[in-house]
Amino acid sequence: VLGFLSVTLFFLLSFGREAEVSASQEAYEDVQWTSDSNSHPPWLRFHLNISRWQLYLHRDPNMEPLTQQLATHRIVSAVQKSGGTQLKLVMSFPNYGQAMLKPMKQERDEETNYNLYYFSDFERHNAEIAAFHLDRILGYRRVPPVAGRLVDVVKEIKDITTDRKLARTFFTSPVGNVCFYGQCSYYCSTEHAVCGRPRHLEASLAVMLPDLSLASRRTWRSPWRRSYSRSKLAKWETEPDYCSTVKKTPPYDKGTRLVDFMDMVILDFLMGNMDRHHYETFEKFGNNTFLLHLDNGRAFGRHSKDEPSILAPLEQCCRIRRSTWLRLRLLSLPQYRLSDVMRASLFSDPLHRVAPLLSEPHLASDCCSRNYQQSVQVSLLINLKERLCNLISIWQS
Amino acid sequence: VLGFLSVTLFFLLSFGREAEVSASQEAYEDVQWTSDSNSHPPWLRFHLNISRWQLYLHRDPNMEPLTQQLATHRIVSAVQKSGGTQLKLVMSFPNYGQAMLKPMKQERDEETNYNLYYFSDFERHNAEIAAFHLDRILGYRRVPPVAGRLVDVVKEIKDITTDRKLARTFFTSPVGNVCFYGQCSYYCSTEHAVCGRPRHLEASLAVMLPDLSLASRRTWRSPWRRSYSRSKLAKWETEPDYCSTVKKTPPYDKGTRLVDFMDMVILDFLMGNMDRHHYETFEKFGNNTFLLHLDNGRAFGRHSKDEPSILAPLEQCCRIRRSTWLRLRLLSLPQYRLSDVMRASLFSDPLHRVAPLLSEPHLASDCCSRNYQQSVQVSLLINLKERLCNLISIWQS
Repeated sequence: VLGFLSVTLFFLLSFGREAEVSASQEAYEDVQWTSDSNSHPPWLRFHLNISRWQLYLHRDPNMEPLTQQLATHRIVSAVQKSGGTQLKLVMSFPNYGQAMLKPMKQERDEETNYNLYYFSDFERHNAEIAAFHLDRILGYRRVPPVAGRLVDVVKEIKDITTDRKLARTFFTSPVGNVCFYGQCSYYCSTEHAVCGRPRHLEASLAVMLPDLSLASRRTWRSPWRRSYSRSKLAKWETEPDYCSTVKKTPPYDKGTRLVDFMDMVILDFLMGNMDRHHYETFEKFGNNTFLLHLDNGRAFGRHSKDEPSILAPLEQCCRIRRSTWLRLRLLSLPQYRLSDVMRASLFSDPLHRVAPLLSEPHLASDCCSRNYQQSVQVSLLINLKERLCNLISIWQS
Repeated sequence: VLGFLSVTLFFLLSFGREAEVSASQEAYEDVQWTSDSNSHPPWLRFHLNISRWQLYLHRDPNMEPLTQQLATHRIVSAVQKSGGTQLKLVMSFPNYGQAMLKPMKQERDEETNYNLYYFSDFERHNAEIAAFHLDRILGYRRVPPVAGRLVDVVKEIKDITTDRKLARTFFTSPVGNVCFYGQCSYYCSTEHAVCGRPRHLEASLAVMLPDLSLASRRTWRSPWRRSYSRSKLAKWETEPDYCSTVKKTPPYDKGTRLVDFMDMVILDFLMGNMDRHHYETFEKFGNNTFLLHLDNGRAFGRHSKDEPSILAPLEQCCRIRRSTWLRLRLLSLPQYRLSDVMRASLFSDPLHRVAPLLSEPHLASDCCSRNYQQSVQVSLLINLKERLCNLISIWQS
């Protein structure tokens, strides 16, 4: 377990997060936590149980109360998360738990404009939720828990925020909906305002990881990062032997990092995420630890087209972790079809009552018949690709 | 007729427009114009025939060649029109004619986001085209002729432009379409790029009016201008007796200005244009002249909802020009249903071959059954409103 901090230390340090805690102290509960984990709120239990191998346990009894609180707990503070390119809010709960809110910006059945580059795409609240479920189904448990929630933008954001820059951007739309747009570098303008109906807004709430002052993280640039340019290609797109260089480069030359990376690639392929430019690990665990699968808002943008290039690392390195491979095989069996398992899993999210979190075309799109035949090039991979394809077609058909 | 300039003077002065003429001189034809109007290109004939009463004649034989040239003539220059809020290009033809190009930005059947204020709406190329037809059908002839055209963004813009700022914004989209976004204050960014398929782009081309140095224009602020604020109301929205003030204010106190204004209001209502903050007249004709109906790109944004507030001037002043009234009555007869006349008229536009210029919901939306009953307040107007409503329902059902 993360366990490099005692509860007391943790508690004391938690109050160092004042920058993003803005409500008056009365809004918060009195804290009566002891070393007994039964006295801890779910978010603290979650933090203390993060291990070198995963964020939470298989069948973790803490998951249900944790996501329940994300979805229902009273919100005592809402401020903008600084530094992001798109609008995000940090929400605080009376028990000092915090969550990152991403608002709904696009209708669920809208597809990302095919002329947009991946780096200009909207972030989607339902992608954050669905990514958490998919990551868990794949057996990774590397996405921090996320729950959907219908937020009252007046009561739960506008009325309680102490963030003046945010408050200033609220307005009532011509049809009487309450809208806001915040301040950020992309899409924070009146044309891209986020609007309640009339004040209820769908959002994803992701539990915050331990503060960086308590559990520092290391950021790694993905070796298969895209160029983030409309005209340049990345090295991996032009060098046929790119993987052999990566395999010799630390930390990919030792331990499990390369197969950890492939795990992430499979997740990204299945959800169509092209935006994995970096990933993070907990500093304390060194190189021998899992990769955090953070920031999945640009996944699930298109159901009518897959992006085979996301699988390039797998294709080029021809490596996959055995347990992942077995999991994919399991999910290819008729009784565990990935699309069915996903549908069932998403059913448990509170927002499911409002509308299905992934539209059926997303669950039902058949990637195999489209792109696979063409992109199978390396003979060794054909088998794997065809099987993966099989699995994928099962998840998506 | 406009006739305050001789052809020679006109021709000489035309070359003063160098700022927006950028192609090399060889691209242009040798000019052999005389005082005989048969020697003039259609655009010059159009300019010279502008009168105090209208832009062109009823059954004007020059209209067909003029719109034909807009739609098919070789483009020798394309530069950005400076000063606008949204992307517009000035296109030049070998015979020194010029046109204002507005590109297609929205799919035809998309409706403007109902949370957007009118002043944040996109401009629509098909609205410019449809407005020209509707204005002509209403018998006004106050919109400069517009034709649709499928433009090759590579050959007809990128390859020939001398506008470096424009050229710099071209790129190829992920699916291989050629896109550009230009420089302007709204929607000129990579997320809002205008894209060919793969290089053919629908656009509207409106013939340019005589240069301001030849025929200066006066700009009038609309007395029923909206507030252009998300929170403030305009005077006309709160003062019940607003019209009586306007009626006493020059130029609305004399001549035909008030009924000219009502003509514009009826046009704007029928096409759902809330963005008529100003209008223009030709200076030379003083106050006793028609109003130019320029800039109609924000019309036809919604077919599922009418905006009765556009009719406020009519409601408040209870005035309408007799010929307009008779025209509306004519267009209410089964054999001249406005929707049918519009459909037939739009059929003649070259872009009609690509796709209908107004989607059927636009032609078929039934405004009457929706908003009219509620907004009928002034008893004197009930009759008029009901009849107008009748007409409108005919045009829209």
